[in-house]
Formats: sequence, structure tokens, C-alpha cells
Amino acid sequence: MRDHFELRDGDAAGRIGELSIPRAGVTVETPALMPVINPNIRTITPARLESEFGAEILITNAYIIHRNEELHAAARDVGLHDLLEFDGAIVTDSGSFQLSEYGDIEVTTEEILEFQREIGSDVGTPVDIPTPPDVSREQAERELAQTATALADAETVDTGEMLVNAPVQGSTYPDLREAAGHQADETDLDVFPIGAVVPLMNSYRYAEMIDVVAAAKRGLGRDAPVHLFGAGHPMMFALAVAAGCDLFDSAAYAIYARDDRYLTVRGTEHLEDLDYFPCSCPVCSARDPAGLRDCDGEKRERLLAAHNLHVSFAEIRRVKQAIRSGNLLELVESRARAHPAMLDGYRTLLDHVEQLEREDPVSKGSFFHLSTESARRPEVRRHHERLARLDAGDRVLLTEGSKPSVDAYDAVWRIVPPFGPFPRALSGTYPLTAETPERTDRAAYEAAAEGIAALAAANPDSSFVLTHDGWSKSALARVPDGVAVEARGGCRGNGDDSADADDAHESAE
Amino acid sequence: MRDHFELRDGDAAGRIGELSIPRAGVTVETPALMPVINPNIRTITPARLESEFGAEILITNAYIIHRNEELHAAARDVGLHDLLEFDGAIVTDSGSFQLSEYGDIEVTTEEILEFQREIGSDVGTPVDIPTPPDVSREQAERELAQTATALADAETVDTGEMLVNAPVQGSTYPDLREAAGHQADETDLDVFPIGAVVPLMNSYRYAEMIDVVAAAKRGLGRDAPVHLFGAGHPMMFALAVAAGCDLFDSAAYAIYARDDRYLTVRGTEHLEDLDYFPCSCPVCSARDPAGLRDCDGEKRERLLAAHNLHVSFAEIRRVKQAIRSGNLLELVESRARAHPAMLDGYRTLLDHVEQLEREDPVSKGSFFHLSTESARRPEVRRHHERLARLDAGDRVLLTEGSKPSVDAYDAVWRIVPPFGPFPRALSGTYPLTAETPERTDRAAYEAAAEGIAALAAANPDSSFVLTHDGWSKSALARVPDGVAVEARGGCRGNGDDSADADDAHESAE
Repeated sequence: MRDHFELRDGDAAGRIGELSIPRAGVTVETPALMPVINPNIRTITPARLESEFGAEILITNAYIIHRNEELHAAARDVGLHDLLEFDGAIVTDSGSFQLSEYGDIEVTTEEILEFQREIGSDVGTPVDIPTPPDVSREQAERELAQTATALADAETVDTGEMLVNAPVQGSTYPDLREAAGHQADETDLDVFPIGAVVPLMNSYRYAEMIDVVAAAKRGLGRDAPVHLFGAGHPMMFALAVAAGCDLFDSAAYAIYARDDRYLTVRGTEHLEDLDYFPCSCPVCSARDPAGLRDCDGEKRERLLAAHNLHVSFAEIRRVKQAIRSGNLLELVESRARAHPAMLDGYRTLLDHVEQLEREDPVSKGSFFHLSTESARRPEVRRHHERLARLDAGDRVLLTEGSKPSVDAYDAVWRIVPPFGPFPRALSGTYPLTAETPERTDRAAYEAAAEGIAALAAANPDSSFVLTHDGWSKSALARVPDGVAVEARGGCRGNGDDSADADDAHESAE
Repeated sequence: MRDHFELRDGDAAGRIGELSIPRAGVTVETPALMPVINPNIRTITPARLESEFGAEILITNAYIIHRNEELHAAARDVGLHDLLEFDGAIVTDSGSFQLSEYGDIEVTTEEILEFQREIGSDVGTPVDIPTPPDVSREQAERELAQTATALADAETVDTGEMLVNAPVQGSTYPDLREAAGHQADETDLDVFPIGAVVPLMNSYRYAEMIDVVAAAKRGLGRDAPVHLFGAGHPMMFALAVAAGCDLFDSAAYAIYARDDRYLTVRGTEHLEDLDYFPCSCPVCSARDPAGLRDCDGEKRERLLAAHNLHVSFAEIRRVKQAIRSGNLLELVESRARAHPAMLDGYRTLLDHVEQLEREDPVSKGSFFHLSTESARRPEVRRHHERLARLDAGDRVLLTEGSKPSVDAYDAVWRIVPPFGPFPRALSGTYPLTAETPERTDRAAYEAAAEGIAALAAANPDSSFVLTHDGWSKSALARVPDGVAVEARGGCRGNGDDSADADDAHESAE
């Protein structure tokens, strides 16, 4: 167990953690957003980030400081914290990004780590190779080997109390990302950035981003603090946290502000397209878009950056609160409707349901069935796995209705879509206390039928009767042949084709 | 055309309108939120509502003022605007709520309207009968007749420049609500509150609320400004606006604050359950929940009320911006994931797709396919109706792929789920420029197949070939028999059972 990172609470693969940063003498609560500070441009001063936005940690680029004579001297002279006027934790990047952009940089891992330590960085970074998406497997493997060398080099440097990043690369090859995660996890380095995902995010390839994160997480231990490097758009914080990311960094707040772009949890707007501010932050509740457009360039940029930070930090708080309340996946459901690519990302997250299920708490607040996707949540899978271990008795009625008065059965189990059957004694336990729509969808019925199949397979000698309320034909097709099926009263109870005609037309009654 | 209400912009059945309120000399832009002012308790002063939250209109209760000797005298003496210190428009309720709560009030429609005019109200209300949900049809009809009498009485009163509400009642009987809407529309009264829906909202019966609104709207003309009376939770503003509501009133902001309840667009939280504020408003970005809990009762109530107002007004702005951007239904998609009952509400809204389609603009920004529900949007229906009018030619290829090089067809049409086929010339027109997920869902394929069926029915002499990318069996079952079906290359292209196995496992590739 890494002693500098403690997990406090969890939901799906997301967690609230405490990252101790000894050199800064601070403990940062994760998920955390690290504003990126360009040492040359300070749209919002670090002091304001701390006092006004509650930033506990920020990130800046040691390579830029290293290369700039004046900054270099000042950083050596007064140290990074005084240079930036920031008391929290400071993470420094190494120039890897510049390497990937310009093909060459003039420092080694040893040099830049020593420089980072010297100027007072709290978390330093070696010179890894950020391999972009879609390169040949050969390139990805070759560069991953170079990154492995950088990590090995980093382990030999005397970094004192400074924590050190161990970036996880591997391009868009999940097996390479997983191997890289495993390799990084084996080092004695401390924080684990998943690198080179920015091109995926910039082109809305959230599904592939989630595959990359899931792969890296499989390689990393559960106790590894994971930084999704370059991820600063509040739209994807909930999704990325649910996949197991702990740290984000935002350069977007300032860069977007520079060209009048306005962040929201549902995407990016351009100031010129806004007639109203869709936001309650101090910037947006004190003026309207026309008023902001009238401000001079520098003031406008500062105000937009402040808005972008407000919305980003508020989303981090919202994600944390969702973890505490046990409804992070409900928040992801909502965020998945920001853009079709976010829906792809959520659907892909649910492809990794086994991985989620291993970390998802057994009991939470209340499960909300909010879409056809909800039927694929880890709680549903876990219930089906449990069904495969339950002893059902000889003659069992599975019913959406109440317990019949006749005593023709050994047991009468309830059925709740999307979970399927369960003994009545479990009715009060999570997730079977779920809130579901009146108009249950086909996917929920189908998942319930799969639960029946799991139970029937585990109890081959039992005889089951299912009485259902108008299940779709596609759901009834998933009920095993040995189960006797009866429709409960009501005209929709015959599982005819019409129930298949439209997902959302279906209703439990 | 009512000359005091002008429609400026629309999306689904939602609209941005300008409601001229001659007596106040102001024009209120709708959708608008009217904070409720209890004349006896002012958690947030009307002056602050105006300056800090941008409230253009508020609502108070003339009956309470009428009954209270001191308030009565003061209101007569200085007038309502000076009494409340508010320059915007003031709407007054009549005591109907008290009537419904206590069974009896001591004024008539004539008396209370004259009183409202006398004290300077800008929009007055007759004494209608707010019939609750689920009463007998007899009661609903009897009370609706009384409301009709109240409206007729109101028409006889000389109300000067004051506008007058014409409430629409009818309990949970859609045909009565429709008839009541029609009746109210026939009067010369001005604003149309849909009454007695609070019990539906309090018990999360959003589906029935939408049925009630849709019915009332069918009776009312398109130019009628509609007030969803008692609706003040920001969670449902987007849904209610999409159904055609223009005015909301919030007592919730103050009442909830009194017992530490905290509004969000995803539901209501209790202050004691919050570890983090999931909000960017000035109240929430300046302190944390522990800090607010430490405030004394009165200060805490004022701060919570301010938060509740910030989040409510921001949501109204967000809804307006969504109408301007043409993505109101995308916002509703997101809000529908707040609670299973909200999903029921959205699914019910889509039941009224014909009604939505009549008002939904033909061209907007970009259609986002965000869920299985998206396949039922008015744009899909409209495209299918258009397909039924298109002349396809003799031999037509319908394909998800590119145009083939061989010249075996008279025309090659593109297919985009959920819309279905269209001539390539329409590719650049809304909604066929839709952004859809890579992982298309079964509902989208099925809707596309229904589009093919519409086209084939309209062109019985044409021969169609469909080449598709792995459509689900359920979708292929909807393709008419006369259409030749070919799977395009790739392992998922055979429409086998597996494509039906899980909605969200499906993928276009």
C-alpha cells in the first residue's frame, strides 16, 4: 500500500482520496483539479486560485523555467513557491510535451528531475515519450521502452521528499497501456499520469479515452493515484472519475478564455453565440454576455477565465459529492447526454463493467434507473452473479406482483427490472431498493430476464414460474425454456410484438 | 393574435416570448421565473430580487393582503409596488389556493379583482377552483364549471390596464384540461395559468404533469402565455418549457431554505447531507457546507434562499440559451437523467410528438442523438412524414456507405439512423447533419427502418436495396418485405441475434 495516497470513499471506479505531498506539507483531496500556470502568463494569479477557487495544487512547466534565463535564475534564487506566490502543492512537467511537439529537447530525465528538486517542485516528472494515438504498434512499443528507461532513470535520481510522476504511455493500444501501467506500478515512483490522451479528447474520442484509462488502471494498483494528463474540460470529469482518475489539470480555463470560449459541463460555447449565461457563477450572475463582450480584451479574458475556473471547480465538487452520496453513475448518466461522443464514452465505460464491479461499493444510497444504459451498470451485473450462487428451493414463483394467497410455491420471489428476481428478504437492500421509471424500457426487462436465466442455471432442479407485466418479446426470449411464463392481468401482458415496437412506449402497467 | 404576447424564438414546443405588461410599463421576457413574495415574510427583499437576480416579475397573494388589516391599509395607501419596493411587474393570486386548502374564502371574483386593481397589481387573478389530481370526474367537471363562471365574472369586471389570469383546471382528465384550455382561450383574459399541478410535482408524477400541460396547450392557442402555476423546481424547467410553458413561480426558493433544503437541477439536497457544494454560485463558491451549517439560522436561511434563486435563475437562462441555440431537447435529455420520474416525464413528452412537431422549428443548430429516447424526437417524425411524400425513382440503393462506382441504380440515398434514408442532396440540411454516437443503439436503427417503410409505402413501384452495417434483427424486422437487404462487409453485418442481445453493445462498425 502506498502510504502517500489513502482512499476514503468510492463509487464505481471513482474515489475520494487523500494525496499527501510531503515536500509541500499539504494533503490534497482527490479528485482534484490542478490549474496549469504558464510561468510567463498569469491570467489568474496563483494566490487568487488558492483564495478564490480553493485550488490546493497547481501544475507548471519546469522545462519552460529551465530554458528561460530570467525565470531559471529566479526559481533557483527564491524557489518555485515564492516565484509563483503559491502555498499549496506544485507539480512540474518536464518538457515531454515540448519533446512531443518539437521532436527534441535539451535535457535528460536526470537533469530535469534534479532541476525540479532544486527549484522546490513538490511533484517532479521525468522525460517520458508521449506517444500520440493511432501510431504504428512498433512506434508505440519503441517509445514505451524509452519511457520505461526514463522511469528507471528517475528511480536512480535522489529526489529527496519530492514525489515523482511515472507516466503511463502506450498510444491507443490497450494491452500496451495495461503493460505500461503495470510497469509504472512496479517502480517506486509516486503519481501516475496517463499521458498523450489530449488528441483523443480534442477530437471527442471519449470511447477510446475510456478504453485507454481502463487499460492503464488494470495495470496500476488500486492504490495508485492516477492523473489524466491534459484533461481539463469539466464535461468529462464525472466520466473520467468514474473510470478511476484522481487528478486533472486545466490549461483550458486560460487558453479558452483567450479566444472567448466559455466552458460548461455540457460542452464549450463561444461568447459571441451566447445571448444568456447558462451559469450561476459570480461572473455570470453579475452580468450578461453582451456586457462581457463590451469589456476590453484583458478584462474579458480574466472574467472568462474566472468563469471557466468556477464551472470546473464546481464540477469537481459535484463529482465528489456524488461519490459521497453514492450516485456518481447517475451524474455520469446526465453528463453522457452532453454530446453523442460522451454517450459513446459512457457506453464504453459500461463495457468495463467487471472492472467497475470490483471497486463499486456493495451498498450506496439509491439506484436510479435513468436510461437503457442503466441496465448495464455494475450493480446489475453483481446481482446476476449473486443469483448464480443462490439456492432457490423446489417450486419458485417469480413475480412482479404481490405474494399470492395460494400456497402452491415453496418461495415467492420479487422481480424488479433491470435486476431480475430476488428473495423478498432482500427487498430492503441496495440496489434492490432502486427507483425505476413507471415506463420501464426493453433493456431493463431484458436484463431482468438474464437474471432469471442466471438463477435457473444455478438451480437446474428447481421449477420456476414467471408472472410478468407485459414484458417485451425480446425479454421473454431471454427467459430459459424451463421457466413457465404467465402474463399477469392487463392488455399488455402477452408479450406480443407491439411491446417490441418502441422501447420507450413500453410501460410496466 | 394577442397583442401583449409576442413569440420571438422557439424550440420543440418551448419559446422565447415577450409579455407586455402595460400597467407596470414593462416587457417581461419569457420563459420567466416569478419569485413568490409572502407579504409577511421577506427572506430576500424584492429590491434584491431585481438588482441581484434580475427578476423582472414577481408574484404575491392579494388575498393575504386583503385579509390582513395592516397590509390591506398599506397596500391601498401606497400601492403594491411601493409596499413591496419593486419596480417590475407584480402578479397577484386571488385566494384560490386558500380556498382549495381551507374549503372557503370570503371574497368573490369581482371583489378580489377590484381589490387587485385598486392596490396596483399588474396581473390579477379571479377565484378559480384548483381541483386536485385524482378526484372523480363529476367533481372535476362541477368545479371546472365553477372556474368557467369565475372567468366569465372576471370578464365583466372593469380591470383597466391590469392583465387578468384565466386559470386552466380539470384535474388529471386530459379532455377536461383541453376543454378548459379552449374555454379560457375564448375569453378576453390574458395569461393562462395551468392550475393545481403542485400535487403532481410534489409526488414526482412528471409524466402526468406533462399530459396535463399537453392537454391544456391543445386547448389554448399558440399565442397564449402559459404559467405552470406552483412550479418552482429548477429540475423541471427545461422539460416544462419544452412542453410549452412560459412562466414559473417559485415559493420553493424560500420555503426550502427555511428547512435547510438546497435546490439543484438534479433534485433537492439537504444541507446536512452535503460535504461539498455542487454549485458555482456566489454563495457556494465562497464557503463550504460545514461553514454554512455554522451560520446562525437567519443568515443560513438567507444564504440558502440566495443559492436556490441563483440556481433557478441560471436554469431559466440556460433554457433560454438552449432555445436560441436550438438544443432545448438536448438539455431535456440531460435533465431527464435527474430522476426516473423525470425520464418518465420526457418519455411522455415524446408521446406528444405530433403536437411538438407542429411547433418545432424546421431548422436548428445540430441534432444530437443522445439516448434511445432521441429516436422519438419530432425531427425524426417529421423526416418520416417527408419520406412519405418523396418520389424515389425506379431503382434506389439505400446505404450507410458511400456511393458505389457501378451505375446499377437510378439513385443512391444515404441512411443515417435514427432518420432513415434521404437523397444525398439533403445531407447538409437539418436534422440530417445530426451528430450520432459511433455506437448506434437499437432504437435508432429501428427508427431508420421505419423511415424506409415510409418511403417504400409512398413508392410502391420502386425497387429498393438496403445495404446496412450490422443492424439489429429488430430493426431489420421493420424493413418492408419488398426491400432487398444486404449487409455491408464486417463481422457485425448479418443482423444476427447477437445484435439484439444488448442495446448498448451495438455499434455501427
